Amino acid sequence: MFQTFDATPSPQASSERVKRLRVLLLERGLKGFLVPRADEHQGEYVPPSAERLKWLTGFSGSAGLAVVTSKHAAVFTDGRYTAQVRSEVDGTLFDFPGLARTQLTGWLTTNCQSGDVIGFDPWLHTAGEIGRLTQALKLHGIKLKPVKNNLADRIWGTGRPAPPRNPILPHPIEFSGRSAADKISAIAKELKTAGQDALVLTLPDSICWLFNIRGSDVAHNPVVLAFAIVPAQGKPELFVIPEKNSKEARAHLDGVVKLSKPEKMAEKLKALKKSGKRVRIDPETAAWWFTHTLGPKSAVRGPDPCIALKAIKNNIEIEGARAAHVRDGAAMCTFLAWLDSAAGDGTVDEISAVRKLEEARIATGALKEISFDTISGSGPNGAIVHYRVSQQTNRQLQQGELFLLDSGAQYADGTTDITRTIAIGQPSPEMRERFTLVLKGHIAIATARFPKGTRGIDLDPFARKALWDMGLDYDHGTGHGVGSYLSVHEGPQSISRAGMAVLEPGMICSNEPGYYKAGTYGIRIENLVLVSEAEIPPRGERPAMSFETLTLVPIDRRLIDISLLDRNELTWLNAYHARVRATIGPLVDPSAREWLTASTGPL
Amino acid sequence: MFQTFDATPSPQASSERVKRLRVLLLERGLKGFLVPRADEHQGEYVPPSAERLKWLTGFSGSAGLAVVTSKHAAVFTDGRYTAQVRSEVDGTLFDFPGLARTQLTGWLTTNCQSGDVIGFDPWLHTAGEIGRLTQALKLHGIKLKPVKNNLADRIWGTGRPAPPRNPILPHPIEFSGRSAADKISAIAKELKTAGQDALVLTLPDSICWLFNIRGSDVAHNPVVLAFAIVPAQGKPELFVIPEKNSKEARAHLDGVVKLSKPEKMAEKLKALKKSGKRVRIDPETAAWWFTHTLGPKSAVRGPDPCIALKAIKNNIEIEGARAAHVRDGAAMCTFLAWLDSAAGDGTVDEISAVRKLEEARIATGALKEISFDTISGSGPNGAIVHYRVSQQTNRQLQQGELFLLDSGAQYADGTTDITRTIAIGQPSPEMRERFTLVLKGHIAIATARFPKGTRGIDLDPFARKALWDMGLDYDHGTGHGVGSYLSVHEGPQSISRAGMAVLEPGMICSNEPGYYKAGTYGIRIENLVLVSEAEIPPRGERPAMSFETLTLVPIDRRLIDISLLDRNELTWLNAYHARVRATIGPLVDPSAREWLTASTGPL
Repeated sequence: MFQTFDATPSPQASSERVKRLRVLLLERGLKGFLVPRADEHQGEYVPPSAERLKWLTGFSGSAGLAVVTSKHAAVFTDGRYTAQVRSEVDGTLFDFPGLARTQLTGWLTTNCQSGDVIGFDPWLHTAGEIGRLTQALKLHGIKLKPVKNNLADRIWGTGRPAPPRNPILPHPIEFSGRSAADKISAIAKELKTAGQDALVLTLPDSICWLFNIRGSDVAHNPVVLAFAIVPAQGKPELFVIPEKNSKEARAHLDGVVKLSKPEKMAEKLKALKKSGKRVRIDPETAAWWFTHTLGPKSAVRGPDPCIALKAIKNNIEIEGARAAHVRDGAAMCTFLAWLDSAAGDGTVDEISAVRKLEEARIATGALKEISFDTISGSGPNGAIVHYRVSQQTNRQLQQGELFLLDSGAQYADGTTDITRTIAIGQPSPEMRERFTLVLKGHIAIATARFPKGTRGIDLDPFARKALWDMGLDYDHGTGHGVGSYLSVHEGPQSISRAGMAVLEPGMICSNEPGYYKAGTYGIRIENLVLVSEAEIPPRGERPAMSFETLTLVPIDRRLIDISLLDRNELTWLNAYHARVRATIGPLVDPSAREWLTASTGPL
Repeated sequence: MFQTFDATPSPQASSERVKRLRVLLLERGLKGFLVPRADEHQGEYVPPSAERLKWLTGFSGSAGLAVVTSKHAAVFTDGRYTAQVRSEVDGTLFDFPGLARTQLTGWLTTNCQSGDVIGFDPWLHTAGEIGRLTQALKLHGIKLKPVKNNLADRIWGTGRPAPPRNPILPHPIEFSGRSAADKISAIAKELKTAGQDALVLTLPDSICWLFNIRGSDVAHNPVVLAFAIVPAQGKPELFVIPEKNSKEARAHLDGVVKLSKPEKMAEKLKALKKSGKRVRIDPETAAWWFTHTLGPKSAVRGPDPCIALKAIKNNIEIEGARAAHVRDGAAMCTFLAWLDSAAGDGTVDEISAVRKLEEARIATGALKEISFDTISGSGPNGAIVHYRVSQQTNRQLQQGELFLLDSGAQYADGTTDITRTIAIGQPSPEMRERFTLVLKGHIAIATARFPKGTRGIDLDPFARKALWDMGLDYDHGTGHGVGSYLSVHEGPQSISRAGMAVLEPGMICSNEPGYYKAGTYGIRIENLVLVSEAEIPPRGERPAMSFETLTLVPIDRRLIDISLLDRNELTWLNAYHARVRATIGPLVDPSAREWLTASTGPL
């Protein structure tokens, strides 16, 4: 079983821990200390050993920062977690000022005085973050100071889980489509062109992509926690706990990369600094420790080049993504067929649905992991965009409600991510109207044609137009990048208000507009799409792109009000359903096939 | 007559001037010197005395930069002027590397050596510009140095026109809608909140907006060239050549602002610096001289607050804009009625059309100026987006061609900007198809509904969708902000790929999608629109905005293929034409009214 349903720790523990942290602050002459939800790699998932924010405050969201000073404390979270932080964290202990990026300086200057010193763990914050905060606090006479041994860890002590030591697994060429040697030489060439001597990599998915390796150090994201230095000339060095070096990994990496202990890294960086080398490092993703160790002359700030390279999938990865989506579509259809027969009798709840879906994916024989904790929200829980079901919040799927199910799988050939909203019993006219408006947005993206140079930010409004016309909207992006058996959220592209990266053929994005009625229901329709070159229409002048929809699962026709669809929208829907039926039908058992046929008939 | 049709100087003069500049470089120990198309105020229009780039190179575009070194020279321009710079400037004297922002460093490092010094005029470049260039050249050992007396001016000598000395004119409250005292106190309050002691203003339209004054120091843009210092407490000081202080201006500004000679400014800034005052200055619009004179402690970098304030028109300005557009619409209709009767016999050319349109606007009795040089492009000239007709390029309006006419007026109550594309004789089916696609984009903006927080960048794609679907597009933004009897181009908002400013009720934008077939024809349909609060539809949830179209002139129905319009688009078009007929009809003479009635009938 990949998903767990535990709830958050009790606030009592939190109070005791904050008290002990304040004793340490006093001992060290610090006014405060920062506790971010981050590990040394700044990934979306962190191992249990790095869940310091949750341990200290009870907050279980995927992004946030606590600050504890001698007298005050606060948890900063983004808009997604406004409600969750209030339900999980003791409001008598912590303030909830909002977003760290906009509120942190104000909160600190209110609660600290000139001359105060705030400690931070040099491994858990990026150079960019520390640089900006230092600058902002300077005017107020408040200083930041790196603290060698994390204060939270000292209190956590033996209760703290050990850092992961899971084996490195080769990601073979039949799935990666390009040898590590080839990728390394592309990076080396880029470094030479830029007049740089080496590159420091700290993002686990960049490292896994570059060396064609995978792992299981964090949940749902098949990465190895490691660091790497890639020289412009010579063999890269991978810094990784020796226990992770399986026999297969050694054989796979032999001749490609030198394996070193993480303890050797400081020495290596100091040597690069001493010999005056220019080392590229991404100040927005690498820990402050790296730029500090390299010093201002050797640390050349620049983007991690793997981010842009791995976003554009090669033909093998694209073929893999298609195959993964056919396999995953069959599992989803098996599950949905079961759900339609079972949900009627009131025995299905959010957790049992997650378990049943996991079973259907395990039955493919190819499932490596789920790609994130399934969002299984019935009725009002569906309106919580980042809902994660626990034993406490679990509720039955009830007649007349909507059930929102956002899930994904990790297969060796590809990562999937799909949301379907399902009518349990008879939906209301309003539910059908809003579902159809969301569907119109989904189809607008699925059928978009756009010239070269178009960015995700340019497409996002098309997904919202039908809702905007009715005075409605949704407060999240329309789509994120997706990895190839890697992170289900990857950059640089996104279809959103912030999506400034140009969409390039070979990129995979989600297409997931939604609508949420707080306390009542939520709707989201999500397929993954592949950016592809489009045919130029007759008398067209400019090279264009369009999306190939990868996900193949019926969209609940009971929720569609066809009077709201125009001819082109209806044509797309019926063609999509015909394609789903033709592709998935032969892969599922007879009862699911019967359901599929009924669910994909033309409207 | 407001528009002139002169051509560019001969390259012979250019060669001689570059030679003389190189002699001066040698004398001064400089490797090179920068000659931007800019004056001390960084406005879009500059007085003839600041047309150094045109004088030196022949290039007459509205943005660009020349660099002359001992052996090489280059003119940097943006994409709009790629063709124009090649036709106007001697390619044996100058390179054309492209955009200064991206190409300047590369060109300088290629043509200069470590140790070289490049001179610049401290009044003609912003602090931001010089800061970035200094940083980029530092790595290569090349330095920038301010040069007190502009080297180009030394060569230009007595041939250089005198700087303008035109009188300041009051802009009365019946047009401005808000007293200068009130605006000044809003700025003072903002400064106090920010903990700043004063504000330096260098943008002429900011100064004119704040003090409710207008002038005629540059073409088409009714501004006074001046500088101002606004203290957080006390009276602002306006630094202006004394000849400009008309009796009316003195009376109007009495008690509101202290008038000082420009020579006093350095002294004043040094006093602020000496007393440790914090002075806000916009590093992206103010000349380097200001931040340098204030020094790093006193110069607090921040945006010119007038930009955001003047973008949101008050009710009086909005009423003024509506009245100006009715008046301008009547003049345009009078002109278009004449054009339809006259163009058939082959006697109308691009210049005579401009003159006739100017006459129609002068006949309103309210015209202060045209708001920019009319773009009057027939046939292939219409495909040149920033075409400016001269005696050499002038051509007759011919049967079977399109005529693109982009023009505007300055009235005391408002600034207009309108483009109509008119069929001369029988248009081709392709022309009608493309015109209708552009019209679909125009209507998409005119009818857009969008939630609060929407930016121009979010709407721009709607104007392009119909073209994108056919493999077509246009290479300019869809809309720019427009002033109130001020600059026809103003920020911060725009409907474009770069339009990150949130649209607020009261802002005026252009809505001008287009299509250009190089060497053949151009199409653009432009109305001004006012951002307005929209009614929330029944069961809608979010406050929304929409546009009120201000411009009232028929769109050429002979160019519309109604089979390409959907029901909503046709409804908008017919309702717009009915509104034009009802509003403008009573204001024009009988022959124009007859034309108007025929041109606005329902389709």
